[in-house]
Amino acid sequence: MTQSAPLPDLTADQHDRLNRQMAFLREADKLKGILRASRLLDNSRHENSAEHSWHIMLYACVLAEHAGDGVDATRVMQMLLIHDIVEIDAGDAPIHGHVDHAAMALKEAAAADRLFNLLPDDQARDFRALWDEFEAAQTPDAQFAKAIDRTQTPVGNLHSGGGTWTEYDVTMDQMDTRVGVPIQRGAPVIWAWLRPLLVSFFANR
Amino acid sequence: MTQSAPLPDLTADQHDRLNRQMAFLREADKLKGILRASRLLDNSRHENSAEHSWHIMLYACVLAEHAGDGVDATRVMQMLLIHDIVEIDAGDAPIHGHVDHAAMALKEAAAADRLFNLLPDDQARDFRALWDEFEAAQTPDAQFAKAIDRTQTPVGNLHSGGGTWTEYDVTMDQMDTRVGVPIQRGAPVIWAWLRPLLVSFFANR
Repeated sequence: MTQSAPLPDLTADQHDRLNRQMAFLREADKLKGILRASRLLDNSRHENSAEHSWHIMLYACVLAEHAGDGVDATRVMQMLLIHDIVEIDAGDAPIHGHVDHAAMALKEAAAADRLFNLLPDDQARDFRALWDEFEAAQTPDAQFAKAIDRTQTPVGNLHSGGGTWTEYDVTMDQMDTRVGVPIQRGAPVIWAWLRPLLVSFFANR
Repeated sequence: MTQSAPLPDLTADQHDRLNRQMAFLREADKLKGILRASRLLDNSRHENSAEHSWHIMLYACVLAEHAGDGVDATRVMQMLLIHDIVEIDAGDAPIHGHVDHAAMALKEAAAADRLFNLLPDDQARDFRALWDEFEAAQTPDAQFAKAIDRTQTPVGNLHSGGGTWTEYDVTMDQMDTRVGVPIQRGAPVIWAWLRPLLVSFFANR
């Protein structure tokens, strides 16, 4: 064994916390197996919710300058980091699909109970509060996070010739309602950039 | 069209910045196609570098309390968010594989030049400086980020019966050198938790 530097002695509490934290982190691996309706830009396969979460955090970081006053980019990143973890139990609900939203909300709340409670109690409470705030979409941070979450797929679909819009037979009116409303609420500058591109795309197909 | 709320007028500069930011964000989609040596915990397929990046950001967020004094968790998250983007051009170098590290460093620097320069100039400089800091591993933030990056795979391998350790015929001595040194430097508490589990695993296989 080449180990030489002395290791710190862990307290029983540290050891217990690390056991619970690692159990949660291992369970989170399953998000890589949850597939979304959208595909990668090279059309090779469906996107999974773990890589989607990474991608929208990159969107949030790069586009943070377009957030309104009072948005805390760090909290937005944390929301986006955990926003889809409930899909491990509840699955993904495609934005343009036919979804029973009340039933889905119940499934997601049960998933949040199970998954976040793998963590030490204080962290379970913090993560749950952050996820609840994202879902409620009432604070500036949550509204910017929601706007970013809605921005990635249209930017990709514009580039790849339509993507899920073709599959779900989506119209510009539906885009205004389902995508435009949340983006404009949280990031009007981004919607001002995106909407003319969408109008042109939908007029020409 | 149901669009009714007025959209803000974008300045030419805002429009140009958004074009460049979105070009970078679309290009980043390719990280989802870069496969690592490690596999998902259910052994169904290799892990890609985008979902890996999400997972280690979750590790960093959950394990932040085990960082040393003076570590800024927000900067650590940003480093981990972008640390693997160069693999879009340079590919992944497995930690236990036979890699020409000097040649790899040159390829990664060229990749950083191309990819970050898709962004507006100020952001290109900021992202490059953050990536350089991560690579150099000299600051407390970079050392904690490196420690977290090294923690995820062993935690998974312990759970899934060995994973890449079997494939690459890895020994405990190699674990101490390649994994233990960077984890102990950046997060000694985590290594104090992890090392006894590794010793036990390698003694019993």
